Amino acid sequence: MSQMLGIDLGGTNMSFGIVDAKGKVLTRSKIPTLTVQGPKSVIRRMGDEALRLLKSSGIAKSVKAVGIGSPGPLSAQKGLVFSTPNLPGWRKVPIAALIHRRLRLPVYLENDANCAALGEASYGAGKGFQNVVVLTLGTGVGGGLIINGELFSGPDTTGGELGHFSINPDGPACGCGQKGCIEQYASATAIARRARELVSKARKGPLWKLCGGDPRAISSRMVHQALLKRDPLARQVWAETGRALGTAVAGYINVFNPDRVILFGGVMQGGKELLAMTRRFGKAGAFPQPAKRAKILSAKLGDDAGLIGAAEMARRSLAVGHAI
Amino acid sequence: MSQMLGIDLGGTNMSFGIVDAKGKVLTRSKIPTLTVQGPKSVIRRMGDEALRLLKSSGIAKSVKAVGIGSPGPLSAQKGLVFSTPNLPGWRKVPIAALIHRRLRLPVYLENDANCAALGEASYGAGKGFQNVVVLTLGTGVGGGLIINGELFSGPDTTGGELGHFSINPDGPACGCGQKGCIEQYASATAIARRARELVSKARKGPLWKLCGGDPRAISSRMVHQALLKRDPLARQVWAETGRALGTAVAGYINVFNPDRVILFGGVMQGGKELLAMTRRFGKAGAFPQPAKRAKILSAKLGDDAGLIGAAEMARRSLAVGHAI
Repeated sequence: MSQMLGIDLGGTNMSFGIVDAKGKVLTRSKIPTLTVQGPKSVIRRMGDEALRLLKSSGIAKSVKAVGIGSPGPLSAQKGLVFSTPNLPGWRKVPIAALIHRRLRLPVYLENDANCAALGEASYGAGKGFQNVVVLTLGTGVGGGLIINGELFSGPDTTGGELGHFSINPDGPACGCGQKGCIEQYASATAIARRARELVSKARKGPLWKLCGGDPRAISSRMVHQALLKRDPLARQVWAETGRALGTAVAGYINVFNPDRVILFGGVMQGGKELLAMTRRFGKAGAFPQPAKRAKILSAKLGDDAGLIGAAEMARRSLAVGHAI
Repeated sequence: MSQMLGIDLGGTNMSFGIVDAKGKVLTRSKIPTLTVQGPKSVIRRMGDEALRLLKSSGIAKSVKAVGIGSPGPLSAQKGLVFSTPNLPGWRKVPIAALIHRRLRLPVYLENDANCAALGEASYGAGKGFQNVVVLTLGTGVGGGLIINGELFSGPDTTGGELGHFSINPDGPACGCGQKGCIEQYASATAIARRARELVSKARKGPLWKLCGGDPRAISSRMVHQALLKRDPLARQVWAETGRALGTAVAGYINVFNPDRVILFGGVMQGGKELLAMTRRFGKAGAFPQPAKRAKILSAKLGDDAGLIGAAEMARRSLAVGHAI
């Protein structure tokens, strides 16, 4: 059986894993990205670590291709990473070609959120289904689309930016230039910001205590802790987030008629409450027929989704004969 | 060369056309639907007219399949039309099987908005492109998606409901149960309603004169006439519509990374102004890379899109060997 090497390139760490045809990570490692050292150094160390892992695994010969998930914008077709806020100093870096030169294996590049979505759809909460929408709720809100069984990322690898649909043209300004994007309601950043606004006025309650009277210290995780302590402000923030996320999910159910909608990312560690509210608003908002089909679930693979998805992407690209 | 018979089933008329492999309508006809007579009568007359057209065309033998575009909800897979507001009295009507029995040809069914989208994408403003988003602005707002060159309508044939994404959860109530759907801003119905609200207060100006002092008489077309007479209220309605439509288009550009976004339907007959505003807001709102790729255009095929798209859908279904 052939294996794939998956690499998940993040702003903080790079993760490596040799993944089998069932989405199982056979062996893995993780090193700091050290983005300050610039792209040359990052790619050299990526190559070093990949070679080391392959060698130590004892199954290097059965590894047939490499998949890299990277922050975008990037071109999957050209194997290039354009300039990205998460990787300072990168400008049209031909990462696929550079890693190919080191490893002498076919190398495929894809957006990191798309890789995570493909991982979840293939081996996680979307396993066995053809049409899967994945919303990634972290510092920002991203996503990925599996349509008729295939990852869809569009001709510029920018498709699936599910967090940048405005659900309120008079809402908070978004980094993307629009107002009221889904990201402005359902990201960890937005949850913390909204809680800060409310607690700065109230100046009391569990959240006020948790942050030690300093609203700047509030994180989305802290808002969830306050929710569990029945803080009414936290409850309000959570309700607003659930409603916004439900609105988005209802819209995507109407647009995609998916089998599964998967909620992924750090914000979802903040619990069952958000999932329950999103389900309620999402199901109620969508048309009855697609609402009946679409199950709204939390992701299953956790941090491994990106790695497993990058490997799966390489496996599929190799099968259809894409080349770099 | 093989031809296809396209049928566009509407609430008012049924249109028939024999369409060649280049999307050209070789011969056509149109009869009233007379929905009050119920599904049996409609389908009998549909069969009669199809047979008559085939016979009179002199090329009946080269017609290899039939495509029917119908109002939904429906199941393309099962060839069934469920109950629909546009066809009163219809309940799980096996239209594909019934027409097959009359015509002895393979019959394929698809949602009417999806057919129109496929027609425009294949032979109209989206010709030659692989990723096309079509927004249909009429009494309601519908749409269709061409992804990697193929019509995507999802497992329940409900995908592509692009008008029912909420862009304002506190906006006007929508027939679908949500609030602030795109349909509540960009449909002919919404445009007329908003103009009625404004003119009922102002009670003067070109639009007030055009409607003879009776706001109930206002149509979206009349609002456009008032716009051309520089009515400030009409200008406000048009600006609000353009902004909402631009917001939606920006969102869909981010989600789909399309080559073309096509605006289709009665509302677009109300002019260049709306297209210009939608372009401005749509391009400004989307991410730079996909915004650069996506051209925002008016539809080209007019009323023929549904017919041509139904025929194209049949051609493609026949080619991949779907059967009814």
